Amino acid sequence: MKFEVRPVDIGTETPTVLLHRDDADELGANPLDRIVIRSDKRTETGIVEVTEKLVDKGVLGATERLQHLTGDVDVSLAPRSGSVGCIRNKLEDKELEDDEIRRIVRDIDRNALNDIELGAYVSAIYANGLSMSETLSLTEHMTEVGETMEWGEGVVADKHSIGGVAGNRVTPLVVPIVAAAGAKIPKTSSRAITSPAGTADTVEVFCDVKFEKERITEIVEETNGCMIWGGSVELSPVDDRIIRAENPLSLDPEGQVIASVLSKKKSVGSTHLVLDIPYGEGAKVQDLSDARELAEDFKRVSDHLGVRTECTITRGGAPVGRGIGPVLEARDVLGVLNGDGPQDLRVKSVRLAEILLEICGVDGSPSRILESGEALEKFREIVEAQNGDPDVTRDDLVPGGKTHGFVADRSGYVTHIDNELISGVARRAGAPHDKSAGIYLEAGVDEEVSRGDVLFTIHAVKREKLEEARKFAESQRPVRVGDRGESLVERV
Amino acid sequence: MKFEVRPVDIGTETPTVLLHRDDADELGANPLDRIVIRSDKRTETGIVEVTEKLVDKGVLGATERLQHLTGDVDVSLAPRSGSVGCIRNKLEDKELEDDEIRRIVRDIDRNALNDIELGAYVSAIYANGLSMSETLSLTEHMTEVGETMEWGEGVVADKHSIGGVAGNRVTPLVVPIVAAAGAKIPKTSSRAITSPAGTADTVEVFCDVKFEKERITEIVEETNGCMIWGGSVELSPVDDRIIRAENPLSLDPEGQVIASVLSKKKSVGSTHLVLDIPYGEGAKVQDLSDARELAEDFKRVSDHLGVRTECTITRGGAPVGRGIGPVLEARDVLGVLNGDGPQDLRVKSVRLAEILLEICGVDGSPSRILESGEALEKFREIVEAQNGDPDVTRDDLVPGGKTHGFVADRSGYVTHIDNELISGVARRAGAPHDKSAGIYLEAGVDEEVSRGDVLFTIHAVKREKLEEARKFAESQRPVRVGDRGESLVERV
Repeated sequence: MKFEVRPVDIGTETPTVLLHRDDADELGANPLDRIVIRSDKRTETGIVEVTEKLVDKGVLGATERLQHLTGDVDVSLAPRSGSVGCIRNKLEDKELEDDEIRRIVRDIDRNALNDIELGAYVSAIYANGLSMSETLSLTEHMTEVGETMEWGEGVVADKHSIGGVAGNRVTPLVVPIVAAAGAKIPKTSSRAITSPAGTADTVEVFCDVKFEKERITEIVEETNGCMIWGGSVELSPVDDRIIRAENPLSLDPEGQVIASVLSKKKSVGSTHLVLDIPYGEGAKVQDLSDARELAEDFKRVSDHLGVRTECTITRGGAPVGRGIGPVLEARDVLGVLNGDGPQDLRVKSVRLAEILLEICGVDGSPSRILESGEALEKFREIVEAQNGDPDVTRDDLVPGGKTHGFVADRSGYVTHIDNELISGVARRAGAPHDKSAGIYLEAGVDEEVSRGDVLFTIHAVKREKLEEARKFAESQRPVRVGDRGESLVERV
Repeated sequence: MKFEVRPVDIGTETPTVLLHRDDADELGANPLDRIVIRSDKRTETGIVEVTEKLVDKGVLGATERLQHLTGDVDVSLAPRSGSVGCIRNKLEDKELEDDEIRRIVRDIDRNALNDIELGAYVSAIYANGLSMSETLSLTEHMTEVGETMEWGEGVVADKHSIGGVAGNRVTPLVVPIVAAAGAKIPKTSSRAITSPAGTADTVEVFCDVKFEKERITEIVEETNGCMIWGGSVELSPVDDRIIRAENPLSLDPEGQVIASVLSKKKSVGSTHLVLDIPYGEGAKVQDLSDARELAEDFKRVSDHLGVRTECTITRGGAPVGRGIGPVLEARDVLGVLNGDGPQDLRVKSVRLAEILLEICGVDGSPSRILESGEALEKFREIVEAQNGDPDVTRDDLVPGGKTHGFVADRSGYVTHIDNELISGVARRAGAPHDKSAGIYLEAGVDEEVSRGDVLFTIHAVKREKLEEARKFAESQRPVRVGDRGESLVERV
């Protein structure tokens, strides 16, 4: 059938097209069915939604992902996607062939799976797991699609952390240390999806994080490093879509995590990687044994890809650093660069940088680089290259002015700070949308506090957000105070 | 946050709301996140999509399912739905508690699951199955939601067929036979989703199929029976949404099938049910042993619900009747009622009606009722009550005028007619949208044919649809001719 294309401004992530109900019936298309759209230039896949008023008969309404389409197109019902059968095989716990995984990845890449099918994909991987050979295939095929970056000969250092730990802003410390030591480290990071800040959100407090590929190359040539938002370069469009499907279900199947992380590292051209696996309550990996197993699997796949990877298993049962939320984390980072700031954040960043330099075969002592001010100097260089103010100080970074101090209702020691709950409070306070919103932990784990002492301060920009965060904190009590060395986490 | 509601005409099945990107950021809502919408009257759940132009800041765009909302509303981010955790449990192969199943059903009912989550739900049930106790819970909770019909004291007969067999239009024969014998049979049927005709599409060739609840009661009081579209009464909105999610994946997990069928039968007030399970290649149930097991499970759940059920296992490896597509099937039905028409359709309908009358404890011989013209008389009564022409004849029902005969390329016997492929041809020819489009099988299984004989005729309304169907038939060859009694189905 012939249609005339008209843009419809709906920013859905899927290539949704709106058809008039009569046209959809005529075509034999139900909502969520796929259609093939042929124009002079190219052939695209669309996913059908039905309307009676938004578009007239004979008109194909193209949403965001299809707005490059114009003029007249020829539309037919698409055959059922072959990769749906592969997803069904995985639901039946069959091991997938390399070619089946290739088809799934290609279909996700060309946006040919609807949300029901994407939900089934992550469910199948979660329910039945991925074998090592499936994980290898998935990583390779995910690497094949999307942009790549190239850096010529020599070492390209990288760092990744499996999430779930609040604060934990080590990247803006590891990057300048490693770059100052002489290794190239073109670091891409993500924005928050469900957390109060992603590394890209925090770095954005200092400077721009979104750049074209060419400019990124220049920044790295000038400074040896960069701290940019991964979404600037479409390194792994497939991964973005998978994350979008995992998110509502809070699923994070291991094989998928490995493929997602390593395919991005390979695409960005990394040759040496330190991969941090925090474990503990509230972190993504809860048990030490699971962390060890994940580390082994990561190493096996990265060996296969030719990326030299060292995994670190770190304690992740509580936040690292004192600030949570972009501005508050940025202040911690500046603190450490200036020779003060939270001790745990400093120690962890130095250790990760040491390991990374060691596997890269680059000499240099991270703690010396930090103490000498070389790291601060390099940080300023990178911030300036990314259009920021190199002379920024902690006083320039002002946390949200609406505050509430959450006090201890007994004396004792801080026994427990819950990552998920603390993140929940910071998000309700407005982070990451309000960059200066978040939490400052006035006391860390094992610190002694007296009844009435402030345990943490909530910062917000808007009064109602402060109120929402306060209520949540009061009902959930993310920081617990007990007796010294108390091991009681909860009473069931 | 406060919003003003404006309707947006998008006919999506989910309660999608459009928010301006800035508002979504401010709210901390990602696409597909759920929001709680509070108005003076009620509280609703919406699923977020983001736009920059379709709605302004401060405006909440309400799509079809939420168009009863008006005026000013207060919006907040919804807590993660509790039933998502239950779905995750099922993905982890845990047996669900009754209360968990209740939460899932309630959330599907109030449209609180997005497509990713619905995809995960059907995937979880498919991957890990449902125990008998889970199936019982699911059936009961699905019965609790949606409309119900009541018929006072006495027997209420019903009939259901597990799908997959092309043609097979027994309902418009069983209903008048059983009603003429004196049993009440208020039959609801579905429209085609992926097939070339549902019973409701075929009955619509004769009369209306969409009625208000009150009118349905009157029709049944007048005639003892009805043949209406189930969508007229929202007997199981949950089932409609589940089917929508199963469809793109071609999943049909057994426990879900049982719960879907029996909850609808219970809601419509049926007390006695004959349930036909066709098995064979191309049918939904492929093996006899699977069919037997499914029958046992059906009986167990219906015992529990207090519906007296008898299951029949029938051969389903080839179409039943000669016509495929609404008008062509309607002609077969009229043929049988007039004492001729396809023998297999007649025999199957009579047998199902016999069993149904037997379990209902109602005397009467279906073949006598058919031969005497009582069934035809009753059929005309029902058609008239449903606003159709009671004097309709086969000649009034004209198949699509654009035709193509598909000829045998060798002499021999018809060994095989593939349900799925035949349906595929009929759909491409335009069925069910073009009611007179479809296929007429000129020869049935085991019939002798000569090279050059027409095996089946494709009927279409539009030239290009005929062409599309012809091409598909030529590449797929849905009817195979071989030597007498040949058992070869395919050569691999």
